[in-house]
Amino acid sequence: MTNKDARTPASVEDEKSEEAGKSIGWHKAYIAGTRPDLRVPVRQVHLTNGQSVTLYDTSGPYTDPLVDTDVRRGLSPLRENWIIARGDTEEYAGRPVRPEDDGIKHTSPRGGLRNLDAVFPGRPRQPRRGREGQAVTQLAYARRGEITPEMEYVAIRENVAPEVVREEIAAGRAVLPANVNHPEIEPMIIGKRFLVKVNANIGNSAVTSSIEEEVEKMTWATRWGADTVMDLSTGRNIHTTREWVLRNSPVPIGTVPLYQALEKVDGRAEELTWEIYKDTVIEQAEQGVDYMTVHAGVRLAYVPLTANRKTGIVSRGGSIMAAWCLAHHKESFLYENFEELCEILAAYDVTYSLGDGLRPGSIADANDEAQFAELRTLGELNRIAKRFNVQTMIEGPGHVPMHKIKENIDLQQEICDEAPFYTLGPLTTDVAPAYDHITSGIGAAMIAWWGTAMLCYVTPKEHLGLPNRDDVKTGVITYKIAAHAADLAKGHPGAQEWDDALSDARFEFRWEDQFNLALDPDTAREFHDETLPAEPAKTAHFCSMCGPKFCSMKISQDIRREHGGTRTEIEEGMALKSKEFAASGNRVYLPIAD
Amino acid sequence: MTNKDARTPASVEDEKSEEAGKSIGWHKAYIAGTRPDLRVPVRQVHLTNGQSVTLYDTSGPYTDPLVDTDVRRGLSPLRENWIIARGDTEEYAGRPVRPEDDGIKHTSPRGGLRNLDAVFPGRPRQPRRGREGQAVTQLAYARRGEITPEMEYVAIRENVAPEVVREEIAAGRAVLPANVNHPEIEPMIIGKRFLVKVNANIGNSAVTSSIEEEVEKMTWATRWGADTVMDLSTGRNIHTTREWVLRNSPVPIGTVPLYQALEKVDGRAEELTWEIYKDTVIEQAEQGVDYMTVHAGVRLAYVPLTANRKTGIVSRGGSIMAAWCLAHHKESFLYENFEELCEILAAYDVTYSLGDGLRPGSIADANDEAQFAELRTLGELNRIAKRFNVQTMIEGPGHVPMHKIKENIDLQQEICDEAPFYTLGPLTTDVAPAYDHITSGIGAAMIAWWGTAMLCYVTPKEHLGLPNRDDVKTGVITYKIAAHAADLAKGHPGAQEWDDALSDARFEFRWEDQFNLALDPDTAREFHDETLPAEPAKTAHFCSMCGPKFCSMKISQDIRREHGGTRTEIEEGMALKSKEFAASGNRVYLPIAD
Repeated sequence: MTNKDARTPASVEDEKSEEAGKSIGWHKAYIAGTRPDLRVPVRQVHLTNGQSVTLYDTSGPYTDPLVDTDVRRGLSPLRENWIIARGDTEEYAGRPVRPEDDGIKHTSPRGGLRNLDAVFPGRPRQPRRGREGQAVTQLAYARRGEITPEMEYVAIRENVAPEVVREEIAAGRAVLPANVNHPEIEPMIIGKRFLVKVNANIGNSAVTSSIEEEVEKMTWATRWGADTVMDLSTGRNIHTTREWVLRNSPVPIGTVPLYQALEKVDGRAEELTWEIYKDTVIEQAEQGVDYMTVHAGVRLAYVPLTANRKTGIVSRGGSIMAAWCLAHHKESFLYENFEELCEILAAYDVTYSLGDGLRPGSIADANDEAQFAELRTLGELNRIAKRFNVQTMIEGPGHVPMHKIKENIDLQQEICDEAPFYTLGPLTTDVAPAYDHITSGIGAAMIAWWGTAMLCYVTPKEHLGLPNRDDVKTGVITYKIAAHAADLAKGHPGAQEWDDALSDARFEFRWEDQFNLALDPDTAREFHDETLPAEPAKTAHFCSMCGPKFCSMKISQDIRREHGGTRTEIEEGMALKSKEFAASGNRVYLPIAD
Repeated sequence: MTNKDARTPASVEDEKSEEAGKSIGWHKAYIAGTRPDLRVPVRQVHLTNGQSVTLYDTSGPYTDPLVDTDVRRGLSPLRENWIIARGDTEEYAGRPVRPEDDGIKHTSPRGGLRNLDAVFPGRPRQPRRGREGQAVTQLAYARRGEITPEMEYVAIRENVAPEVVREEIAAGRAVLPANVNHPEIEPMIIGKRFLVKVNANIGNSAVTSSIEEEVEKMTWATRWGADTVMDLSTGRNIHTTREWVLRNSPVPIGTVPLYQALEKVDGRAEELTWEIYKDTVIEQAEQGVDYMTVHAGVRLAYVPLTANRKTGIVSRGGSIMAAWCLAHHKESFLYENFEELCEILAAYDVTYSLGDGLRPGSIADANDEAQFAELRTLGELNRIAKRFNVQTMIEGPGHVPMHKIKENIDLQQEICDEAPFYTLGPLTTDVAPAYDHITSGIGAAMIAWWGTAMLCYVTPKEHLGLPNRDDVKTGVITYKIAAHAADLAKGHPGAQEWDDALSDARFEFRWEDQFNLALDPDTAREFHDETLPAEPAKTAHFCSMCGPKFCSMKISQDIRREHGGTRTEIEEGMALKSKEFAASGNRVYLPIAD
């Protein structure tokens, strides 16, 4: 797959014309930082009125026609020199990759050999970690008062002062997920003082999907605005799939190590051990996973609290840990070994995403005892992680009716010292399978307005099956809408400029600008052309929705033209001009063809 | 078109099997009232566990296999005897229908003859109105303490006492739109104490669409849950299209008479007169239009307030009236003649939908001076309408960021004496043309939670073109989600039963029940089958989303089976059973095929 494949025909076309010097559509631009190797990508939209609008861009080098990407080679390691220059990390041999890492048993009827064709062919690399286990995290640097290149990068991206970024990270109110083994990423930040972010889940299951599909889903998701991607693969080739995704991802990658650990014990939860889990975390940290979901809050004593629930435990990780706790009648090995886990994560700068294993899976179970008992434990674990300088965010629900949403963010912020909240939806009703991107998009917009820092998308396939390419796009677009609606409601500086630019284009019938400024230019153009395909329609002062006679914006413009643009002009002008206006037999619409 | 066409294959199939005595899928049932001719339709969903769930049904006789409908004949006049029995109305010759009513000019190059094929062929009828102009409105009856059959009907539908319905109507907090010339409707109520309702707009424009399409869109919209339908046709055959829609509609029909009036003056706003408008209102009232949008709040003095707006006036009706006011430098003829208009509407029981002609069309214009100046006038007009016993609801915006939504409903309720609020969205951002069903669904759910009584849907084609059949379905489903999410958040009695039934089915892997309980069973089934088509998958304890090993609900069920169902059982059982559980070598998942 080349970078062309990762883009839609429309955008390819736009960039071609951009190269040809025409200023239509959009093109990739870069904002320079204080050092030559610090260039922050933006999406520059060129308007037909000569102005241009700059938008946040998550699509990576794939949308830069001057960069020739190749998924077999991987992206260039943008941050490598920054990491080396800090001098606090070292390369080492690393853990040998075994067939079991890809879920292949020597005993397997399919034979014990790994699928060597699938092994990532890119440049050989050795893993890197902090010298003598010291914390090499952005949190440690921020606390020391250092503004790293990564911090400067996100400051430019968010259009704030670098010191604001450092402060928010140092206070634990924001995280900058950036594993020292994932130098390919374009740094981004997650925190309530910054733009609301969106995560897209990909990943094959035992039932379906392949490596190629997952890599394509990742580039496709970031093409439409995903700020991070979680690889939730649970099938075969789990290690190799992750390698391909990491080496080609311009955004931070998150995982749930427990899934791979369970594969290593053939799905027998009770056979899980701290050693197997730890080995898996190191395996993934060496590959470059930027943040990991850890369900350490599912404690033995909380499991009975779910007994009277309508839908029990709906988190995969939560149910696995609950089964383990009951099988051994022991406290969770994740909770028991949390400090050692902190030391490991600190050595690679892997960010915690403390999982909500007991989140409600139905309206009936929202905000119950089990959910909030776990949240209090997450608050306790958050404090421990901070002692080890590990960046931490907290995961949230789930299924929650609108009137119970605010309590979730308020409690989380209080209990977890304002650590970034990372929520799935919440879904505001259970009755619409096949439309849960919408049932959850409603809750997502609200909870983000109230302070959630990152939203985990939900696709139309939620509860029904594995999302395909179209579902991924629909999920991302829906959640970008929720995130931007929240940025507006929070009064985020500059957020409204985008809306204003599009509304100006709409009022002035600059159709091409309206399309190019849209979250999804392709579909906007396509919908318009369905009923008015002709080129003239692109300059027409109406569309098929109301037709020429009834276009209110056209009438509004006539009023301004006839009576002057400003309020006083209209007030003064009204009396004088009304006569001649009537006399002019002015028609308030363009005559129809017939 | 027969009733078969109005339904999807799935529901036809379900009803067939229902007739065959199998209790799968759903079928149409009726709840009897105190009189034999009062039967309230419900959607009875039969679950595989023997239980059944009763849902509100808007689809009309089209989904009753025992009723043979025919759009050329129209629906049977359910309410006719109730209206006659009241003895306060009389039939009369009525106003002759002219070619101009269908937008056909004698001077037209296409010739002066009306398209006689298009004339509705159903039973001949004379219009009916209140004797010597007395108010024959549900408001008048409610104030007199009468509980009409219509009120009893909606009481059964909403599962409340008839007296509650009468009280809310009498207080002006709810409306029951039911023109005496539209006896075909199944009565419904709009008010904040009742289920949140959804309106779907249909209507051809000068550019596209036909009579057949509009009738089909109406039955299609009600099939998916539209509670009312507005016919916003602006093209040719406007009168005839409306006749077909009315005679075949089981739900109240709303219109904007101003659109047809403008057609009668060939689109020249300044040539509009009170006489032409009044003639159009009577024409439509005689046909049976149940509620009319009247933009009487757009006063001359308010027009200049829109001069500095980003998107001016975006309401068709609002811009037309503004153009008229400026052309003549006169106060709006709708405002000036409002009392006479009240007398007309009272004689047919046409409900006012006082239009928000100055609603904001962009985030930048939300909650501005022009918008709230008009709202105060609507409050004044609402009081006048009540003096004439005319039922009244108030229309609301528009484009509003989340943090400015609540002010809209709070102000409206205060200024308009709690008259039902009927809002379009609001859209919470301007940046997503082609996804405005979602940008607005977010705002719709929130404002409905806070008290809006009816939501006007927005389709994916908003701002881009005229919606087709698929867009209508997507718009209705999205708004049913918003409405139900609001019913849940308001704690509406019984609202959560639907969610609980679906979540129970989900937790127990009753896939068919999950599909049949879904807002859109067809799409839910289709999405599931995309990845796991086989019949066995319908009983499998997992889906392709997580696969068998990682199905949290499966694991949850195992836990309950192994450790007892209730909380105490688990607590007591935990210690004892943990050993044998481990010994049993229990696998927490179903083994995969391989």
